[in-house]
Amino acid sequence: MAEPSSAALNQLRDKIDQADKELLEVLRRRLDLVAEVGTIKHAEGLPIYAPKREANMLAKRRAEAESMGISPQLIEDLLRRMMRESYVSEKDVGFKRINPELGSVVVIGGGGKLGGLFVHLFQLSGYDVHIIEQHDWDNAPALLADAGIVVVSVPIDVTEQVIAQLPPLPKECLLVDLTSIKQAPLAAMLKAHSGPVLGLHPMFGPDVSSLAKQVVVVCHGRGQEKYQWLLDQITIWGARLHEAAATEHDQAMQLVQAMRHFTAFVYGMHLKREHADIEQLLQFSSPIYRLELAMVGRLFAQDASLYADIIFSQPDSLVRARHYLDRYQQALELLESGDKQGFNKTFADVADWFGDFAQQFQHESANMLMMANDSRSN
Amino acid sequence: MAEPSSAALNQLRDKIDQADKELLEVLRRRLDLVAEVGTIKHAEGLPIYAPKREANMLAKRRAEAESMGISPQLIEDLLRRMMRESYVSEKDVGFKRINPELGSVVVIGGGGKLGGLFVHLFQLSGYDVHIIEQHDWDNAPALLADAGIVVVSVPIDVTEQVIAQLPPLPKECLLVDLTSIKQAPLAAMLKAHSGPVLGLHPMFGPDVSSLAKQVVVVCHGRGQEKYQWLLDQITIWGARLHEAAATEHDQAMQLVQAMRHFTAFVYGMHLKREHADIEQLLQFSSPIYRLELAMVGRLFAQDASLYADIIFSQPDSLVRARHYLDRYQQALELLESGDKQGFNKTFADVADWFGDFAQQFQHESANMLMMANDSRSN
Repeated sequence: MAEPSSAALNQLRDKIDQADKELLEVLRRRLDLVAEVGTIKHAEGLPIYAPKREANMLAKRRAEAESMGISPQLIEDLLRRMMRESYVSEKDVGFKRINPELGSVVVIGGGGKLGGLFVHLFQLSGYDVHIIEQHDWDNAPALLADAGIVVVSVPIDVTEQVIAQLPPLPKECLLVDLTSIKQAPLAAMLKAHSGPVLGLHPMFGPDVSSLAKQVVVVCHGRGQEKYQWLLDQITIWGARLHEAAATEHDQAMQLVQAMRHFTAFVYGMHLKREHADIEQLLQFSSPIYRLELAMVGRLFAQDASLYADIIFSQPDSLVRARHYLDRYQQALELLESGDKQGFNKTFADVADWFGDFAQQFQHESANMLMMANDSRSN
Repeated sequence: MAEPSSAALNQLRDKIDQADKELLEVLRRRLDLVAEVGTIKHAEGLPIYAPKREANMLAKRRAEAESMGISPQLIEDLLRRMMRESYVSEKDVGFKRINPELGSVVVIGGGGKLGGLFVHLFQLSGYDVHIIEQHDWDNAPALLADAGIVVVSVPIDVTEQVIAQLPPLPKECLLVDLTSIKQAPLAAMLKAHSGPVLGLHPMFGPDVSSLAKQVVVVCHGRGQEKYQWLLDQITIWGARLHEAAATEHDQAMQLVQAMRHFTAFVYGMHLKREHADIEQLLQFSSPIYRLELAMVGRLFAQDASLYADIIFSQPDSLVRARHYLDRYQQALELLESGDKQGFNKTFADVADWFGDFAQQFQHESANMLMMANDSRSN
């Protein structure tokens, strides 16, 4: 019995190979077509990410798939993955230069990862870009003398100091920072420079393959009409702008960024001191725990001072970190006294507070976990 | 200038539509071919997940893609997503029944989510399945009298009690539990029944669309030769078995499962009491923070008692939860005393301890975050 069916299996697998060959051909053709779209967008200065066009296209494909008995979610997931590839290659074509009149772009800290990403994007858009690093501060006055924009991208703990040390900038020069806190740097820039000032926080790591769909928080400083071109330029790079007051931004960062970094840091310490065996934990791990472990572990692949700075830079973070400790103690007391009823009551209160978001988050994360499971081998 | 290029854009988009139509056709054909493979596998009793065949196929496709100038990672990601779809539909075909001689399957708690999933899988494999719920315990002796296997799938906190209350089972009947801790239930089963006994922990939620690639932890009890069929059956369902000692399993669960649930619970409390504005946090969130928020929020979409039981059921969890508190306090002291050097030193120690895993986790999570970003709309 085994032989004929294994012949049948082989025959089917040959046909699957053939289908995949056709798939690759269609894929190649589609990538080329999208690249042509990219060239036109480049010439016209259109953003590489067009949310409406994408939503329309996906809705059409979902309907077509459904009429063919194919899961709409399947085609949507496949197309979204293909679109990522297209954003990356569109990026390589370059971008339209929105402000042809601008003097030179000077990125202070342009040798760093995030600064370097912006250097690259400005260059891809045809600007004349210069970098100032710590060791060549002596050249700063000469480089800054005809700057059209100065971007400050240095570690948080020296941002204000670097801004205060700037030589006088040309009156019309735009001064921008990319720090992950916004109140203090913005105040320092407004004090140091009388021309246009803008605070930005790119909400992504420097390792993104393109800016498509990434968020950049915009905290207005002074003279918006003088820097609108930069916001347009960033939109062309594919990012989504989110305007916010600096205080509002900083509070949100304390709750999410600083606290998540800090608790992940403590969790890493905890695993080490409990002599956890990571290899073994991974053997046991379901996609969700593997992902949780990865989110903790990834912190330690990065630069300690980056995190130290984010956590140490805001005194309010400490207050919140202490609040968290109080809550941990309260929750632990419920556990230690075996107060299951109290635990359930607190749980219900928090669930109430999350409201519909709890369901939404479960749905979103379920999707992510399926993708994490897709990636498993052996 | 705008008109001709927008005509050119429309023309390109028509061609993309055409390519997508061909894509859907190839996809339909591929899904059908894989369904035929599923039918043969069903008849032959072959597992739906074949790691080696998959790895070979992916390696071939990657090479073909590369020769066509297509990113190998792109085709791998697309095929992995398609394979998920195939696993789900293969599941609907049903599975070969590995043990045709077996008496009836009785699932205690088969009306629950996880129990229900196993009821469904046994039924898809042609077994005669009965369910016992709390309210029909009176029928238990009659149902259990000719049981070939009894699966206990009840909340952790009553598992041992339910096992102790079982009427005498047929001598050759297999007794299995699905609890997420293993030492105590296994001991209780060995005490209650003199026949074959097996502890399983399915490392996934009841909402998985198929068992393909999911892990089931196997803690041997008594009489492996009598339950090898069940392990084979589970492999056919697509899962990967991981054998472990019950103590080793329980320790790993304390470090990962219980502690992650507990710290997520505390984080939810914290967000509520800090009066966080979730809507606003999401506006600011990069994929990584959105994912972190989702991982916390999803907890509260679920059943409080499920988590309470997991946390309360193991006294050792409390010891570890207290250790974590100590570490949190130590880390907070570094912050409060402004001891950046101490922070960096601890960070470096933990990074050392993670070793190569830190890099691996960064890589893995970067992939996940790109997928999270792909899913964004507007």
